[in-house]
Amino acid sequence: MSEPASPPSTPEGLVDLLALLAYGELTAFSRLAADADLAPALSAKAALGRLATIEYGHFELLRARLAELVGDPDAAMEPFVAAVDAYHDRTAPTDWLEGLVKAYVGDGIASDFYREIAARLDPAARDLITEVLHTSATADFVVATVRAEIERDPRVAGRLALWGRRLVGEALSQAQRVAADREGLTAMVVGVQAGTGGDLTEVVAMFSRLTERHSERMQRLGLTA
Amino acid sequence: MSEPASPPSTPEGLVDLLALLAYGELTAFSRLAADADLAPALSAKAALGRLATIEYGHFELLRARLAELVGDPDAAMEPFVAAVDAYHDRTAPTDWLEGLVKAYVGDGIASDFYREIAARLDPAARDLITEVLHTSATADFVVATVRAEIERDPRVAGRLALWGRRLVGEALSQAQRVAADREGLTAMVVGVQAGTGGDLTEVVAMFSRLTERHSERMQRLGLTA
Repeated sequence: MSEPASPPSTPEGLVDLLALLAYGELTAFSRLAADADLAPALSAKAALGRLATIEYGHFELLRARLAELVGDPDAAMEPFVAAVDAYHDRTAPTDWLEGLVKAYVGDGIASDFYREIAARLDPAARDLITEVLHTSATADFVVATVRAEIERDPRVAGRLALWGRRLVGEALSQAQRVAADREGLTAMVVGVQAGTGGDLTEVVAMFSRLTERHSERMQRLGLTA
Repeated sequence: MSEPASPPSTPEGLVDLLALLAYGELTAFSRLAADADLAPALSAKAALGRLATIEYGHFELLRARLAELVGDPDAAMEPFVAAVDAYHDRTAPTDWLEGLVKAYVGDGIASDFYREIAARLDPAARDLITEVLHTSATADFVVATVRAEIERDPRVAGRLALWGRRLVGEALSQAQRVAADREGLTAMVVGVQAGTGGDLTEVVAMFSRLTERHSERMQRLGLTA
């Protein structure tokens, strides 16, 4: 399982990436569908439900690709179950606004991260990831709803801003756990070439871009990052 | 089967029927997707998730039809929120086997009930309901999984048989609540013709058919009804 630094396009790192993304989508589906039940209005419940089913569609695409690559896609996902579940267990929304912000912020960070990585993949894998991450119109619904709630009750903004920071903190902490466990994946993310130490400057730049885009999303919601 | 100008085809009862079915599907989607998280194996989680997304598709079909009939489909569903939510709150599965049995038994009774009613509707409404209730292959997955679990641990059978009875009891109790609140719907179910007291013999026969089919489903799972 722990091979030394391998090139970016080795199956191991790619399989890990697709497997992590697949299990992430399956779990996002399940949690978001459950959070939909917290929505006060039927229209919001339906909108969150629709977002959830889109995530399930992505999961099926990714699992089909994994099955082509490794035969047993579930075994490929297994190593990521603990970290992804831990993230969700520690960020269970207590109301539907928290659920909305979680869906928007969490999907946003995950999409940005996968897009960054996709640039380093072969064209087939890149196309799949780009298709899966194609942003849906649901983002507009989330932004409009959260902004309207803040206008109605400005105190909501402080609580949701804190919540956004907690989401990022928990995501980073689980990402570290995955990085420590899965060397092939980490090598791919860090962009390690055989025999080199990887381009650390580029990694730092990537994390700074991810942070920047997260702040933009929080601002769009009317929140301080 | 096309009897014109009778209460069965009045908009009120039909709108109620479609609205109840629509909200039932939306809630079934949400609860089932959440229950999927209880599954021990990724394959089971994925299978339950797929079943949930099918229910969401049904919800969208029904809501679109409601929107054609009444303009505001959410307002049409509102009267059924309390009863459907109460059913789910009182039958929250404590493990994934209970979730599987609930999905199978609950969907089965609901499908049989809607099929019974559909016979009294105009062809367009009948076709919609028949399409929505088209049984999926997931039933085979549920039957195989529950039977395998019972083989592995025969004590499971007694607990799940009790669970099946509780599901039916809670469903009946919420159905009574809906029947008392929604006269138009009740009249349609009872088959009241203008100026008559309805065909009570037929209602009794219908409930006996529903019970019979429920017992068959329980037997298919390896359980006593």
